Amino acid sequence: MSISREVSFAAPAPGALEDYLAECKGVCDGEVDRLFAAGQRGSNTLYELILDYPRRGGKALRPALSIATCLGLGGHLEAILPTAATLELYHNAFLIHDDIEDESWRRRGKPTLHVDHGIPIAVNVGDAMLSMSLQPLLDNVERVGLGPALRILRAVAHMTRQTVDGQAVELEWVRSNTWQLDDADYLSMVELKTSWYSFITPLQVGAIAAGAGADYLAPLESLGRHLGAAFQITDDLLNLRADPEEYGKEIGGDLWEGKRTLMLLHTLRFAEPGDRDRAVQLLAMRRPSADGELGLTVLLDHLVSRGELSRTGKSEIAARLQEFHPSESKTLDDIRWLYGLMLSVGSMEHAREVARWHARKAALLLAGLDWFPTSRHRDVLCDLVDYVHRRTR
Amino acid sequence: MSISREVSFAAPAPGALEDYLAECKGVCDGEVDRLFAAGQRGSNTLYELILDYPRRGGKALRPALSIATCLGLGGHLEAILPTAATLELYHNAFLIHDDIEDESWRRRGKPTLHVDHGIPIAVNVGDAMLSMSLQPLLDNVERVGLGPALRILRAVAHMTRQTVDGQAVELEWVRSNTWQLDDADYLSMVELKTSWYSFITPLQVGAIAAGAGADYLAPLESLGRHLGAAFQITDDLLNLRADPEEYGKEIGGDLWEGKRTLMLLHTLRFAEPGDRDRAVQLLAMRRPSADGELGLTVLLDHLVSRGELSRTGKSEIAARLQEFHPSESKTLDDIRWLYGLMLSVGSMEHAREVARWHARKAALLLAGLDWFPTSRHRDVLCDLVDYVHRRTR
Repeated sequence: MSISREVSFAAPAPGALEDYLAECKGVCDGEVDRLFAAGQRGSNTLYELILDYPRRGGKALRPALSIATCLGLGGHLEAILPTAATLELYHNAFLIHDDIEDESWRRRGKPTLHVDHGIPIAVNVGDAMLSMSLQPLLDNVERVGLGPALRILRAVAHMTRQTVDGQAVELEWVRSNTWQLDDADYLSMVELKTSWYSFITPLQVGAIAAGAGADYLAPLESLGRHLGAAFQITDDLLNLRADPEEYGKEIGGDLWEGKRTLMLLHTLRFAEPGDRDRAVQLLAMRRPSADGELGLTVLLDHLVSRGELSRTGKSEIAARLQEFHPSESKTLDDIRWLYGLMLSVGSMEHAREVARWHARKAALLLAGLDWFPTSRHRDVLCDLVDYVHRRTR
Repeated sequence: MSISREVSFAAPAPGALEDYLAECKGVCDGEVDRLFAAGQRGSNTLYELILDYPRRGGKALRPALSIATCLGLGGHLEAILPTAATLELYHNAFLIHDDIEDESWRRRGKPTLHVDHGIPIAVNVGDAMLSMSLQPLLDNVERVGLGPALRILRAVAHMTRQTVDGQAVELEWVRSNTWQLDDADYLSMVELKTSWYSFITPLQVGAIAAGAGADYLAPLESLGRHLGAAFQITDDLLNLRADPEEYGKEIGGDLWEGKRTLMLLHTLRFAEPGDRDRAVQLLAMRRPSADGELGLTVLLDHLVSRGELSRTGKSEIAARLQEFHPSESKTLDDIRWLYGLMLSVGSMEHAREVARWHARKAALLLAGLDWFPTSRHRDVLCDLVDYVHRRTR
């Protein structure tokens, strides 16, 4: 990167959130390249694949939060950059493994890594990114000193544990088809799954790298918690939309997966009992498998009607398929009906309201941080509070 | 655990390798329970699943190497135990993800974790284990002091990177159907994939926890490298055997996956050109998918011969299946033929010879470590050198 780091970040450019994010993305990509250029050996493919998702774009939201907090509190870019790049690496590792876990097909406008390269390689690339994040955090000892380096390591250790705990809670809800959950249950899960790794820890490590004391961490934790809630609810709302070009992720994937979003849980609480029972039953059904299960069933019916296949033959084939797909799967009509039900009980509006409340809460908390001097960096944080629930992609 | 740690490990019991391993497994399981009991919240299922593979048994080879080295060099069990437990955790995390990557169905006599709980949950459990390993290593600061704790962290960071690099090399060889590889290529891959995390790092962290200086690390690296080679070749040989009860893993899985073992590469170098070409072609074919692909093809033929399905109908179904399984898959006959070819060119004997050579090399290196005092712990290391290539499971 040819960006002159200090000059660039010091120049006042109020409101230019996009520019700031792009700048963070630039220095962060450069740092990731630097970290992995040193490791080019054995299999170059691995390093190419590690850089695949980061190179597809992405907003570099987490590095931006770290950098803005560090610089805003008087720290230097050099002090936070390896940690910021590491957080971005974690994020992309989680995305790769999430895409496998959610059976997602698209990410940032292209096929997901496991669709392109198979699950074996995608699992290993994610593991590589998680594993490799330790080294730059150890190198922090030389950059920010022993005390802050250890505090950053402890913050990251805490973060990863919260994240996998949250992911486990969510997966378990889907697996056991749990639905008697309210907003508070959803929000505790999101705090674990999203707020720590996307907001709380990025803010806190930025402060630590700037030399801030332990007192600064609790208010940043509250701020990050509310930001995370607003962000995740907005993310879940965007997932329901029908414009793949704009959002880049697979659309409606959460409904196929049966994810317990704030909207879905609201629907299950407020729908008529008959509709609710149907919805719960439908959520228990699995997603159609990627091996063309739906298409094959349609084809068999077609062959029977054309006299190419006997009814006995069809039953035998169906029985054989049944062995490997032992339960019924959701259909597109199921998903449409569920979406209609969610609209009819006002679940989207409820979710938007909750997201707005958390964003307002975050804005108030940020406004109350009197030890955070006014600067371009603080402005960026204010803009980000607004961005997390107003964004359209 | 009610074991009196010091007394138990200090008591002389020459040659009792099994007892020593069992003792290490016991204290290590206790430590893992202690580490995770503290984290019981949110989803208990996650912690149950983390303990699933460790509770199935396993030899606790890696903790035993660490403990024997630490105690043998005058260190205390308390100084190495959290690190030893962490290595066991890494090992089990790698097993869970390996089983997904290799599409393995059995592990330690039971279905693999992803077969029991689905790929999403299995990916997350492995991630949880990788992520949670950081905290005990940070707690080392209080146990062994700052300097040794940082050295252990650096050793583990190096280890994880070597391991994912090795895994990437192996996956890439399979993906690209590379076969022009010799013993040296195989051994460099194994050094990365196996030797570091199973031998070199366990030995080195044991020495560090005992307060050994940097000079001690290079000879332990050589020792671990040869042990790793002997161990992995033996493991690959065991994979070819036909007794599932004794080995616990799926049998012949490596051949279905097309793994580049020392034996397979030897076969490809020494088979007649015609046989070699057939073998290479066969290796390029994928493994039959788990959705009953093989059985379905057989059924369709059956239905045609019984007049239940027209030839047109069969072609249409085959074309539909083709979209999702675009290439031909290996058959059981292919695997049998390949196994016969390997036997006929003496590949198993060659591999056993190479394993023996590395085990002898390791024994000589260990004998030459004049700074490692004679003790029960040193005896255990000697026994382990013998064990890695003589074991039958």
